[in-house]
Amino acid sequence: MSIQEKMKQYAEHFNGVLEEYFASQPTKVDLIGQAVQYSIVDGGKRIRPMLVYMGAEFCGKDMASVDSLALGIEMIHSYSLVHDDLPCMDNDELRRGKPTTHKKFGEAMGVLAGDGLLNLAFETMLENVSNKCDIQAISYMAKCSGINGMIGGQVLDIFNTDKQLSVEDIWLLNSLKTSCLIKAALVGSCIKCGADEQVVSDMERYAENMGIIFQLVDDILDVHSTTEIMGKTVGKDNEQNKNTYLSRVGEEKTRKTIQELYEDSIDCVKKYGNKAKGFVEFAKYLTARLS
Amino acid sequence: MSIQEKMKQYAEHFNGVLEEYFASQPTKVDLIGQAVQYSIVDGGKRIRPMLVYMGAEFCGKDMASVDSLALGIEMIHSYSLVHDDLPCMDNDELRRGKPTTHKKFGEAMGVLAGDGLLNLAFETMLENVSNKCDIQAISYMAKCSGINGMIGGQVLDIFNTDKQLSVEDIWLLNSLKTSCLIKAALVGSCIKCGADEQVVSDMERYAENMGIIFQLVDDILDVHSTTEIMGKTVGKDNEQNKNTYLSRVGEEKTRKTIQELYEDSIDCVKKYGNKAKGFVEFAKYLTARLS
Repeated sequence: MSIQEKMKQYAEHFNGVLEEYFASQPTKVDLIGQAVQYSIVDGGKRIRPMLVYMGAEFCGKDMASVDSLALGIEMIHSYSLVHDDLPCMDNDELRRGKPTTHKKFGEAMGVLAGDGLLNLAFETMLENVSNKCDIQAISYMAKCSGINGMIGGQVLDIFNTDKQLSVEDIWLLNSLKTSCLIKAALVGSCIKCGADEQVVSDMERYAENMGIIFQLVDDILDVHSTTEIMGKTVGKDNEQNKNTYLSRVGEEKTRKTIQELYEDSIDCVKKYGNKAKGFVEFAKYLTARLS
Repeated sequence: MSIQEKMKQYAEHFNGVLEEYFASQPTKVDLIGQAVQYSIVDGGKRIRPMLVYMGAEFCGKDMASVDSLALGIEMIHSYSLVHDDLPCMDNDELRRGKPTTHKKFGEAMGVLAGDGLLNLAFETMLENVSNKCDIQAISYMAKCSGINGMIGGQVLDIFNTDKQLSVEDIWLLNSLKTSCLIKAALVGSCIKCGADEQVVSDMERYAENMGIIFQLVDDILDVHSTTEIMGKTVGKDNEQNKNTYLSRVGEEKTRKTIQELYEDSIDCVKKYGNKAKGFVEFAKYLTARLS
Protein backbone atom coordinates (compact mmCIF):
# COMPACT_ATOMS: atom_id res chain seq x y z
CA MET A 1 0.00 0.00 0.00
CA SER A 2 1.34 3.46 -0.90
CA ILE A 3 1.81 6.07 1.82
CA GLN A 4 -1.03 8.11 0.27
CA GLU A 5 -3.40 5.15 0.56
CA LYS A 6 -2.31 4.53 4.15
CA MET A 7 -2.79 8.21 5.01
CA LYS A 8 -6.27 8.02 3.54
CA GLN A 9 -7.02 4.99 5.71
CA TYR A 10 -5.85 6.71 8.89
CA ALA A 11 -7.85 9.84 7.99
CA GLU A 12 -10.97 7.76 7.34
CA HIS A 13 -10.65 6.02 10.68
CA PHE A 14 -10.16 9.36 12.41
CA ASN A 15 -13.10 11.00 10.62
CA GLY A 16 -15.31 8.12 11.75
CA VAL A 17 -14.12 8.55 15.34
CA LEU A 18 -14.76 12.31 15.12
CA GLU A 19 -18.26 11.84 13.74
CA GLU A 20 -19.13 9.35 16.46
CA TYR A 21 -17.68 11.67 19.06
CA PHE A 22 -19.89 14.61 18.11
CA ALA A 23 -22.95 12.39 17.67
CA SER A 24 -22.56 11.21 21.27
CA GLN A 25 -21.89 14.65 22.79
CA PRO A 26 -24.65 16.59 24.50
CA THR A 27 -24.94 20.24 23.42
CA LYS A 28 -26.54 22.73 25.77
CA VAL A 29 -25.95 25.66 23.40
CA ASP A 30 -26.49 24.75 19.72
CA LEU A 31 -24.63 27.64 18.10
CA ILE A 32 -21.25 26.91 19.70
CA GLY A 33 -21.67 23.20 18.95
CA GLN A 34 -22.17 24.04 15.27
CA ALA A 35 -19.20 26.42 15.11
CA VAL A 36 -16.91 23.93 16.83
CA GLN A 37 -17.91 21.14 14.46
CA TYR A 38 -17.62 23.40 11.41
CA SER A 39 -14.05 24.19 12.44
CA ILE A 40 -12.88 20.58 12.61
CA VAL A 41 -15.14 18.43 10.41
CA ASP A 42 -14.20 17.98 6.69
CA GLY A 43 -10.76 19.28 7.38
CA GLY A 44 -7.33 18.60 6.02
CA LYS A 45 -5.25 15.48 5.76
CA ARG A 46 -5.40 14.67 9.49
CA ILE A 47 -1.62 14.41 9.65
CA ARG A 48 -1.46 14.84 13.44
CA PRO A 49 -4.05 12.13 14.19
CA MET A 50 -2.19 9.89 11.74
CA LEU A 51 1.05 10.38 13.66
CA VAL A 52 -0.80 9.54 16.89
CA TYR A 53 -1.91 6.25 15.30
CA MET A 54 1.51 5.53 13.79
CA GLY A 55 3.09 6.06 17.22
CA ALA A 56 0.68 3.61 18.85
CA GLU A 57 1.16 0.94 16.18
CA PHE A 58 4.94 1.35 16.42
CA CYS A 59 4.60 0.61 20.16
CA GLY A 60 2.43 -2.43 19.48
CA LYS A 61 -0.89 -0.88 20.46
CA ASP A 62 -4.06 -0.57 18.38
CA MET A 63 -5.58 2.63 17.02
CA ALA A 64 -8.59 2.56 19.36
CA SER A 65 -6.31 2.89 22.38
CA VAL A 66 -5.22 6.38 21.24
CA ASP A 67 -8.41 7.69 19.63
CA SER A 68 -8.83 10.26 22.42
CA LEU A 69 -5.32 11.64 21.82
CA ALA A 70 -6.01 11.81 18.08
CA LEU A 71 -9.19 13.79 18.79
CA GLY A 72 -7.39 16.02 21.27
CA ILE A 73 -4.45 16.91 19.03
CA GLU A 74 -6.70 17.65 16.04
CA MET A 75 -8.90 19.88 18.22
CA ILE A 76 -5.79 21.78 19.34
CA HIS A 77 -4.56 22.07 15.75
CA SER A 78 -7.99 23.24 14.57
CA TYR A 79 -8.39 25.85 17.32
CA SER A 80 -4.98 27.27 16.41
CA LEU A 81 -6.07 27.64 12.78
CA VAL A 82 -9.38 29.28 13.75
CA HIS A 83 -7.61 31.87 15.92
CA ASP A 84 -4.78 32.28 13.41
CA ASP A 85 -7.32 33.16 10.70
CA LEU A 86 -8.92 35.98 12.77
CA PRO A 87 -8.81 39.54 11.36
CA CYS A 88 -6.41 40.67 14.10
CA MET A 89 -4.05 37.78 13.26
CA ASP A 90 -3.49 36.51 9.68
CA ASN A 91 -6.91 37.76 8.49
CA ASP A 92 -7.66 34.78 6.25
CA GLU A 93 -11.05 34.25 4.67
CA LEU A 94 -10.44 30.86 3.13
CA ARG A 95 -9.25 27.66 4.80
CA ARG A 96 -9.33 24.18 3.32
CA GLY A 97 -11.35 25.60 0.44
CA LYS A 98 -14.20 26.96 2.58
CA PRO A 99 -14.91 30.18 4.52
CA THR A 100 -12.94 30.43 7.76
CA THR A 101 -14.92 30.08 11.00
CA HIS A 102 -15.10 33.82 11.69
CA LYS A 103 -16.19 34.53 8.10
CA LYS A 104 -19.01 32.02 8.52
CA PHE A 105 -20.09 32.71 12.12
CA GLY A 106 -18.69 36.18 12.91
CA GLU A 107 -15.58 37.26 14.75
CA ALA A 108 -16.80 36.73 18.32
CA MET A 109 -17.70 33.15 17.48
CA GLY A 110 -14.27 32.72 15.89
CA VAL A 111 -12.74 33.52 19.27
CA LEU A 112 -15.21 31.36 21.22
CA ALA A 113 -15.15 28.36 18.86
CA GLY A 114 -11.35 28.35 19.15
CA ASP A 115 -11.57 28.52 22.94
CA GLY A 116 -14.18 25.77 22.86
CA LEU A 117 -11.98 23.47 20.76
CA LEU A 118 -8.93 23.96 22.99
CA ASN A 119 -10.98 23.27 26.11
CA LEU A 120 -12.69 20.30 24.45
CA ALA A 121 -9.30 18.79 23.60
CA PHE A 122 -8.51 18.51 27.30
CA GLU A 123 -12.04 17.39 28.23
CA THR A 124 -11.75 14.57 25.69
CA MET A 125 -8.25 13.44 26.59
CA LEU A 126 -8.97 13.61 30.35
CA GLU A 127 -12.01 11.38 29.96
CA ASN A 128 -9.74 8.58 28.81
CA VAL A 129 -7.18 8.30 31.56
CA SER A 130 -6.46 5.14 33.47
CA ASN A 131 -2.78 5.15 34.34
CA LYS A 132 0.35 7.26 34.79
CA CYS A 133 1.42 7.01 31.15
CA ASP A 134 -1.93 8.49 30.07
CA ILE A 135 -1.34 11.50 32.30
CA GLN A 136 2.29 11.93 31.24
CA ALA A 137 1.15 11.92 27.62
CA ILE A 138 -1.50 14.63 28.10
CA SER A 139 0.89 16.68 30.21
CA TYR A 140 3.55 16.45 27.47
CA MET A 141 1.02 17.43 24.82
CA ALA A 142 -0.19 20.39 26.92
CA LYS A 143 3.37 21.74 27.17
CA CYS A 144 3.90 21.35 23.42
CA SER A 145 0.81 23.42 22.64
CA GLY A 146 1.38 26.21 25.20
CA ILE A 147 3.31 29.46 25.48
CA ASN A 148 6.65 27.62 25.41
CA GLY A 149 5.40 25.61 22.45
CA MET A 150 2.99 26.34 19.63
CA ILE A 151 1.56 29.58 21.06
CA GLY A 152 5.08 30.92 21.59
CA GLY A 153 5.75 30.19 17.92
CA GLN A 154 2.64 32.12 16.90
CA VAL A 155 3.83 35.11 18.90
CA LEU A 156 7.29 35.03 17.28
CA ASP A 157 5.59 34.81 13.90
CA ILE A 158 3.06 37.61 14.31
CA PHE A 159 5.03 40.14 16.34
CA ASN A 160 8.15 40.22 14.23
CA THR A 161 6.81 41.07 10.78
CA ASP A 162 8.35 44.54 10.94
CA LYS A 163 11.83 43.29 11.77
CA GLN A 164 14.21 40.75 10.29
CA LEU A 165 14.68 37.77 12.58
CA SER A 166 17.99 35.94 12.56
CA VAL A 167 18.09 32.53 10.90
CA GLU A 168 18.36 31.00 14.41
CA ASP A 169 15.20 32.79 15.55
CA ILE A 170 13.35 31.70 12.43
CA TRP A 171 14.44 28.15 13.22
CA LEU A 172 13.02 28.53 16.76
CA LEU A 173 9.83 30.02 15.28
CA ASN A 174 9.33 27.03 12.97
CA SER A 175 10.22 24.59 15.72
CA LEU A 176 7.69 26.07 18.15
CA LYS A 177 4.97 26.87 15.64
CA THR A 178 5.02 23.65 13.65
CA SER A 179 7.25 20.96 15.16
CA CYS A 180 5.74 21.23 18.63
CA LEU A 181 2.32 19.89 17.62
CA ILE A 182 3.92 17.17 15.47
CA LYS A 183 5.88 16.14 18.57
CA ALA A 184 2.76 16.34 20.71
CA ALA A 185 1.04 13.92 18.33
CA LEU A 186 3.78 11.35 17.76
CA VAL A 187 5.69 11.49 21.04
CA GLY A 188 2.53 11.97 23.15
CA SER A 189 1.16 8.79 21.62
CA CYS A 190 4.39 6.86 22.25
CA ILE A 191 4.42 8.04 25.89
CA LYS A 192 0.82 6.92 26.37
CA CYS A 193 1.75 3.54 24.92
CA GLY A 194 4.60 3.11 27.40
CA ALA A 195 7.57 3.70 25.05
CA ASP A 196 11.05 3.66 26.62
CA GLU A 197 13.37 6.68 26.77
CA GLN A 198 15.30 5.77 23.63
CA VAL A 199 12.15 5.54 21.53
CA VAL A 200 10.86 8.83 22.98
CA SER A 201 14.14 10.54 22.18
CA ASP A 202 14.31 9.16 18.60
CA MET A 203 10.69 10.07 17.95
CA GLU A 204 11.23 13.58 19.30
CA ARG A 205 14.08 14.15 16.86
CA TYR A 206 12.10 12.63 13.99
CA ALA A 207 9.02 14.73 14.79
CA GLU A 208 11.08 17.90 15.21
CA ASN A 209 12.54 17.35 11.73
CA MET A 210 9.16 16.59 10.18
CA GLY A 211 7.78 19.88 11.50
CA ILE A 212 10.65 21.90 10.08
CA ILE A 213 10.50 20.08 6.73
CA PHE A 214 6.75 20.70 6.59
CA GLN A 215 7.27 24.41 7.24
CA LEU A 216 10.16 24.86 4.80
CA VAL A 217 8.26 23.03 2.06
CA ASP A 218 5.18 25.16 2.81
CA ASP A 219 7.27 28.33 2.48
CA ILE A 220 8.47 27.23 -0.96
CA LEU A 221 4.95 26.21 -2.03
CA ASP A 222 3.58 29.57 -0.83
CA VAL A 223 5.79 31.25 -3.39
CA HIS A 224 5.15 28.85 -6.29
CA SER A 225 1.65 27.43 -5.88
CA THR A 226 -1.86 28.77 -6.42
CA THR A 227 -4.82 29.29 -4.10
CA GLU A 228 -6.66 26.53 -5.94
CA ILE A 229 -3.99 23.90 -5.32
CA MET A 230 -3.35 24.87 -1.69
CA GLY A 231 -7.01 25.33 -0.69
CA LYS A 232 -6.00 28.50 1.18
CA THR A 233 -4.81 31.97 0.30
CA VAL A 234 -1.18 31.88 -0.92
CA GLY A 235 1.53 34.44 -1.55
CA LYS A 236 0.73 36.07 1.81
CA ASP A 237 4.10 35.40 3.44
CA ASN A 238 5.76 37.97 1.25
CA GLU A 239 2.85 40.41 1.40
CA GLN A 240 2.83 40.29 5.21
CA ASN A 241 6.62 40.44 5.54
CA LYS A 242 6.66 37.06 7.26
CA ASN A 243 10.01 35.90 8.50
CA THR A 244 10.73 32.70 6.59
CA TYR A 245 13.89 30.64 6.33
CA LEU A 246 13.41 30.77 2.56
CA SER A 247 13.41 34.58 2.45
CA ARG A 248 16.61 34.68 4.46
CA VAL A 249 18.76 31.93 2.86
CA GLY A 250 17.18 31.50 -0.59
CA GLU A 251 15.54 28.53 -2.28
CA GLU A 252 18.64 26.51 -3.10
CA LYS A 253 19.86 26.48 0.50
CA THR A 254 16.32 25.77 1.74
CA ARG A 255 16.07 22.72 -0.53
CA LYS A 256 19.46 21.52 0.69
CA THR A 257 18.38 21.91 4.34
CA ILE A 258 15.22 19.93 3.64
CA GLN A 259 17.35 17.12 2.19
CA GLU A 260 19.64 17.11 5.24
CA LEU A 261 16.70 17.01 7.64
CA TYR A 262 15.24 14.17 5.63
CA GLU A 263 18.45 12.15 5.92
CA ASP A 264 18.71 12.83 9.64
CA SER A 265 15.12 11.63 10.07
CA ILE A 266 15.80 8.38 8.28
CA ASP A 267 18.83 7.99 10.57
CA CYS A 268 16.55 8.29 13.64
CA VAL A 269 14.25 5.47 12.66
CA LYS A 270 16.12 3.07 10.38
CA LYS A 271 17.52 1.05 13.30
CA TYR A 272 13.96 -0.07 14.07
CA GLY A 273 13.84 -1.80 10.68
CA ASN A 274 10.55 -2.84 9.16
CA LYS A 275 8.55 -1.53 12.13
CA ALA A 276 9.55 2.00 11.18
CA LYS A 277 8.76 1.70 7.47
CA GLY A 278 5.79 4.07 7.75
CA PHE A 279 8.01 6.77 9.23
CA VAL A 280 10.49 6.52 6.35
CA GLU A 281 7.64 6.74 3.85
CA PHE A 282 6.09 9.72 5.60
CA ALA A 283 9.41 11.59 5.57
CA LYS A 284 9.69 10.86 1.83
CA TYR A 285 6.12 12.01 1.30
CA LEU A 286 6.63 15.36 3.06
CA THR A 287 9.82 16.04 1.14
CA ALA A 288 8.28 14.96 -2.17
CA ARG A 289 5.50 17.61 -1.99
CA LEU A 290 8.10 19.80 -3.70
CA SER A 291 8.70 17.67 -6.77
CA MET B 1 -11.76 37.12 61.96
CA SER B 2 -14.21 38.77 59.55
CA ILE B 3 -14.91 37.22 56.17
CA GLN B 4 -13.20 40.21 54.52
CA GLU B 5 -10.03 39.56 56.52
CA LYS B 6 -10.16 35.85 55.69
CA MET B 7 -10.66 36.60 52.01
CA LYS B 8 -7.64 38.87 52.14
CA GLN B 9 -5.59 36.07 53.70
CA TYR B 10 -6.60 33.56 51.03
CA ALA B 11 -5.85 36.13 48.31
CA GLU B 12 -2.43 36.87 49.81
CA HIS B 13 -1.56 33.17 49.95
CA PHE B 14 -2.69 32.77 46.35
CA ASN B 15 -0.79 35.82 45.12
CA GLY B 16 2.35 34.42 46.72
CA VAL B 17 1.82 31.07 44.99
CA LEU B 18 1.24 32.86 41.68
CA GLU B 19 4.38 34.95 42.01
CA GLU B 20 6.46 31.90 42.84
CA TYR B 21 4.91 30.03 39.95
CA PHE B 22 5.91 32.63 37.36
CA ALA B 23 9.36 33.11 38.91
CA SER B 24 10.04 29.38 38.45
CA GLN B 25 8.67 29.12 34.89
CA PRO B 26 11.01 29.17 31.90
CA THR B 27 9.95 31.54 29.11
CA LYS B 28 11.17 30.89 25.59
CA VAL B 29 9.28 33.90 24.18
CA ASP B 30 9.33 36.94 26.48
CA LEU B 31 6.42 38.87 25.01
CA ILE B 32 3.79 36.18 25.59
CA GLY B 33 5.13 35.61 29.10
CA GLN B 34 4.65 39.30 29.88
CA ALA B 35 1.14 39.43 28.44
CA VAL B 36 0.08 36.30 30.31
CA GLN B 37 1.40 37.64 33.61
CA TYR B 38 -0.14 41.08 33.02
CA SER B 39 -3.52 39.40 32.56
CA ILE B 40 -3.48 37.55 35.86
CA VAL B 41 -1.15 39.37 38.29
CA ASP B 42 -2.63 42.18 40.48
CA GLY B 43 -6.09 41.01 39.68
CA GLY B 44 -9.34 40.97 41.55
CA LYS B 45 -10.41 39.37 44.80
CA ARG B 46 -9.28 35.85 43.86
CA ILE B 47 -12.71 34.48 44.75
CA ARG B 48 -12.26 31.26 42.76
CA PRO B 49 -8.88 30.37 44.30
CA MET B 50 -10.42 31.14 47.72
CA LEU B 51 -13.21 28.65 47.06
CA VAL B 52 -10.62 26.06 46.03
CA TYR B 53 -8.90 26.57 49.38
CA MET B 54 -12.16 26.59 51.35
CA GLY B 55 -13.14 23.31 49.70
CA ALA B 56 -9.83 21.70 50.67
CA GLU B 57 -10.00 22.91 54.27
CA PHE B 58 -13.60 21.71 54.53
CA CYS B 59 -12.34 18.25 53.48
CA GLY B 60 -9.52 18.36 56.05
CA LYS B 61 -6.69 19.08 53.59
CA ASP B 62 -4.24 21.98 53.63
CA MET B 63 -4.02 24.83 51.12
CA ALA B 64 -0.75 23.65 49.57
CA SER B 65 -2.42 20.44 48.40
CA VAL B 66 -4.70 22.40 46.05
CA ASP B 67 -2.42 25.27 44.98
CA SER B 68 -2.26 23.88 41.43
CA LEU B 69 -6.06 23.87 41.16
CA ALA B 70 -6.20 27.43 42.51
CA LEU B 71 -3.69 28.50 39.83
CA GLY B 72 -5.57 26.59 37.15
CA ILE B 73 -9.00 28.01 37.91
CA GLU B 74 -7.71 31.59 38.14
CA MET B 75 -5.90 31.16 34.81
CA ILE B 76 -9.16 29.95 33.25
CA HIS B 77 -11.09 32.84 34.80
CA SER B 78 -8.47 35.35 33.62
CA TYR B 79 -8.36 34.02 30.07
CA SER B 80 -12.15 34.32 29.87
CA LEU B 81 -11.93 37.98 30.92
CA VAL B 82 -9.15 38.73 28.41
CA HIS B 83 -11.17 37.25 25.54
CA ASP B 84 -14.43 38.75 26.82
CA ASP B 85 -12.85 42.22 26.73
CA LEU B 86 -11.81 41.94 23.05
CA PRO B 87 -13.24 44.46 20.57
CA CYS B 88 -15.31 41.75 18.84
CA MET B 89 -16.80 40.70 22.20
CA ASP B 90 -17.65 43.21 24.99
CA ASN B 91 -15.06 45.74 23.76
CA ASP B 92 -13.89 46.85 27.22
CA GLU B 93 -10.85 49.06 27.69
CA LEU B 94 -10.71 48.96 31.48
CA ARG B 95 -10.52 45.94 33.78
CA ARG B 96 -9.68 45.96 37.49
CA GLY B 97 -8.77 49.66 37.10
CA LYS B 98 -6.12 49.14 34.42
CA PRO B 99 -6.07 48.84 30.61
CA THR B 100 -7.35 45.50 29.34
CA THR B 101 -4.78 43.11 27.85
CA HIS B 102 -5.60 43.95 24.22
CA LYS B 103 -5.48 47.70 24.98
CA LYS B 104 -2.02 47.22 26.45
CA PHE B 105 -0.52 44.65 24.05
CA GLY B 106 -2.72 44.83 20.94
CA GLU B 107 -5.59 42.69 19.79
CA ALA B 108 -3.60 39.73 18.44
CA MET B 109 -1.84 39.40 21.78
CA GLY B 110 -5.22 39.60 23.52
CA VAL B 111 -6.24 36.46 21.64
CA LEU B 112 -2.90 34.69 22.18
CA ALA B 113 -2.52 35.62 25.87
CA GLY B 114 -6.00 34.23 26.50
CA ASP B 115 -5.12 31.03 24.64
CA GLY B 116 -1.87 30.86 26.59
CA LEU B 117 -3.63 31.18 29.94
CA LEU B 118 -6.20 28.49 29.12
CA ASN B 119 -3.48 26.12 27.98
CA LEU B 120 -1.29 26.98 30.98
CA ALA B 121 -4.17 26.15 33.33
CA PHE B 122 -4.11 22.57 32.11
CA GLU B 123 -0.31 22.39 32.01
CA THR B 124 -0.21 23.49 35.64
CA MET B 125 -2.95 21.22 36.91
CA LEU B 126 -1.62 18.21 34.99
CA GLU B 127 1.82 18.63 36.51
CA ASN B 128 0.33 17.92 39.92
CA VAL B 129 -1.45 14.63 39.47
CA SER B 130 -0.79 11.57 41.57
CA ASN B 131 -4.08 9.70 41.89
CA LYS B 132 -7.54 9.12 40.43
CA CYS B 133 -9.16 11.93 42.45
CA ASP B 134 -6.69 14.42 40.97
CA ILE B 135 -7.73 13.40 37.46
CA GLN B 136 -11.45 13.40 38.24
CA ALA B 137 -11.08 16.93 39.62
CA ILE B 138 -9.33 18.30 36.52
CA SER B 139 -11.78 16.49 34.26
CA TYR B 140 -14.72 18.01 36.18
CA MET B 141 -13.17 21.48 35.97
CA ALA B 142 -12.53 21.09 32.23
CA LYS B 143 -16.20 20.29 31.62
CA CYS B 144 -17.30 23.29 33.70
CA SER B 145 -15.20 25.67 31.63
CA GLY B 146 -16.07 24.28 28.19
CA ILE B 147 -18.79 24.65 25.57
CA ASN B 148 -21.37 23.04 27.86
CA GLY B 149 -20.17 25.28 30.69
CA MET B 150 -18.69 28.76 30.81
CA ILE B 151 -18.05 29.12 27.06
CA GLY B 152 -21.65 28.09 26.35
CA GLY B 153 -22.76 30.85 28.71
CA GLN B 154 -20.63 33.40 26.87
CA VAL B 155 -22.26 32.38 23.59
CA LEU B 156 -25.77 32.73 25.04
CA ASP B 157 -24.78 36.15 26.38
CA ILE B 158 -23.17 37.59 23.25
CA PHE B 159 -25.39 36.15 20.52
CA ASN B 160 -28.74 37.09 21.98
CA THR B 161 -28.40 40.84 22.49
CA ASP B 162 -30.86 41.53 19.68
CA LYS B 163 -33.57 39.27 21.08
CA GLN B 164 -35.31 38.92 24.43
CA LEU B 165 -34.39 35.65 26.09
CA SER B 166 -36.95 33.97 28.35
CA VAL B 167 -36.35 34.14 32.10
CA GLU B 168 -35.45 30.43 31.97
CA ASP B 169 -32.82 31.02 29.27
CA ILE B 170 -31.37 33.94 31.25
CA TRP B 171 -31.14 31.60 34.22
CA LEU B 172 -29.26 29.07 32.07
CA LEU B 173 -27.03 31.87 30.79
CA ASN B 174 -26.11 32.94 34.35
CA SER B 175 -25.66 29.35 35.45
CA LEU B 176 -23.29 28.53 32.59
CA LYS B 177 -21.48 31.86 32.46
CA THR B 178 -20.92 32.39 36.18
CA SER B 179 -21.90 29.39 38.32
CA CYS B 180 -19.92 26.88 36.27
CA LEU B 181 -16.51 28.32 37.22
CA ILE B 182 -17.59 28.72 40.85
CA LYS B 183 -18.53 25.02 40.79
CA ALA B 184 -15.26 24.16 39.08
CA ALA B 185 -13.37 25.86 41.92
CA LEU B 186 -15.26 24.58 44.95
CA VAL B 187 -16.45 21.18 43.75
CA GLY B 188 -13.26 20.47 41.80
CA SER B 189 -11.31 21.03 44.99
CA CYS B 190 -13.62 18.77 47.05
CA ILE B 191 -13.31 16.02 44.41
CA LYS B 192 -9.52 16.27 44.48
CA CYS B 193 -9.65 16.01 48.28
CA GLY B 194 -11.70 12.81 48.12
CA ALA B 195 -15.10 14.19 49.21
CA ASP B 196 -18.03 11.76 49.25
CA GLU B 197 -21.07 12.03 46.96
CA GLN B 198 -23.22 13.89 49.52
CA VAL B 199 -20.59 16.60 50.02
CA VAL B 200 -20.10 16.94 46.25
CA SER B 201 -23.85 17.28 45.72
CA ASP B 202 -24.27 19.86 48.53
CA MET B 203 -21.31 21.88 47.33
CA GLU B 204 -22.59 21.80 43.75
CA ARG B 205 -25.91 23.31 44.88
CA TYR B 206 -24.16 25.87 47.08
CA ALA B 207 -21.76 26.88 44.29
CA GLU B 208 -24.55 27.05 41.71
CA ASN B 209 -26.42 29.47 44.01
CA MET B 210 -23.34 31.57 44.70
CA GLY B 211 -22.78 32.05 40.97
CA ILE B 212 -26.35 33.17 40.38
CA ILE B 213 -26.31 35.48 43.42
CA PHE B 214 -23.02 36.99 42.20
CA GLN B 215 -24.50 37.63 38.76
CA LEU B 216 -27.82 39.08 39.99
CA VAL B 217 -26.03 41.37 42.43
CA ASP B 218 -23.66 42.43 39.63
CA ASP B 219 -26.62 43.28 37.40
CA ILE B 220 -28.06 45.52 40.11
CA LEU B 221 -24.69 47.14 40.78
CA ASP B 222 -24.19 47.75 37.05
CA VAL B 223 -27.27 49.95 37.13
CA HIS B 224 -26.50 51.80 40.38
CA SER B 225 -22.73 51.96 40.76
CA THR B 226 -19.97 54.01 39.15
CA THR B 227 -16.91 53.03 37.11
CA GLU B 228 -14.71 54.18 39.96
CA ILE B 229 -16.28 51.86 42.51
CA MET B 230 -16.48 48.84 40.19
CA GLY B 231 -13.01 49.25 38.64
CA LYS B 232 -14.54 48.48 35.26
CA THR B 233 -16.89 50.15 32.80
CA VAL B 234 -20.47 50.09 34.13
CA GLY B 235 -23.93 50.77 32.69
CA LYS B 236 -23.00 48.72 29.63
CA ASP B 237 -25.60 45.99 30.14
CA ASN B 238 -28.38 48.36 29.16
CA GLU B 239 -26.37 50.02 26.41
CA GLN B 240 -25.56 46.65 24.84
CA ASN B 241 -29.08 45.27 25.28
CA LYS B 242 -27.77 42.50 27.51
CA ASN B 243 -30.28 39.95 28.64
CA THR B 244 -30.36 40.23 32.43
CA TYR B 245 -32.73 38.73 34.95
CA LEU B 246 -33.07 42.24 36.40
CA SER B 247 -34.23 43.76 33.11
CA ARG B 248 -36.86 41.07 32.75
CA VAL B 249 -38.35 40.79 36.26
CA GLY B 250 -37.43 44.15 37.87
CA GLU B 251 -35.32 45.02 40.90
CA GLU B 252 -37.77 44.02 43.63
CA LYS B 253 -38.19 40.48 42.32
CA THR B 254 -34.44 40.22 41.71
CA ARG B 255 -33.72 41.17 45.33
CA LYS B 256 -36.30 38.60 46.50
CA THR B 257 -34.70 35.88 44.35
CA ILE B 258 -31.29 36.71 45.79
CA GLN B 259 -32.71 36.31 49.30
CA GLU B 260 -34.25 32.92 48.42
CA LEU B 261 -31.01 31.69 46.89
CA TYR B 262 -29.18 32.84 49.99
CA GLU B 263 -31.50 30.86 52.25
CA ASP B 264 -31.23 27.76 50.08
CA SER B 265 -27.44 28.03 50.24
CA ILE B 266 -27.45 28.17 54.03
CA ASP B 267 -29.70 25.12 53.93
CA CYS B 268 -27.07 23.22 51.88
CA VAL B 269 -24.27 23.72 54.36
CA LYS B 270 -25.72 24.26 57.84
CA LYS B 271 -25.85 20.53 58.59
CA TYR B 272 -22.05 20.51 58.56
CA GLY B 273 -22.05 22.89 61.55
CA ASN B 274 -18.96 24.86 62.47
CA LYS B 275 -16.92 23.31 59.65
CA ALA B 276 -19.11 25.16 57.16
CA LYS B 277 -19.01 28.55 58.88
CA GLY B 278 -16.89 30.09 56.12
CA PHE B 279 -19.48 29.11 53.51
CA VAL B 280 -22.28 30.80 55.48
CA GLU B 281 -20.18 33.95 55.82
CA PHE B 282 -19.29 33.99 52.15
CA ALA B 283 -22.96 33.69 51.17
CA LYS B 284 -23.72 36.62 53.48
CA TYR B 285 -20.83 38.59 52.02
CA LEU B 286 -21.98 38.13 48.41
CA THR B 287 -25.53 39.10 49.27
CA ALA B 288 -24.43 42.08 51.35
CA ARG B 289 -22.62 43.74 48.41
CA LEU B 290 -26.04 45.27 47.74
CA SER B 291 -26.55 46.99 51.07
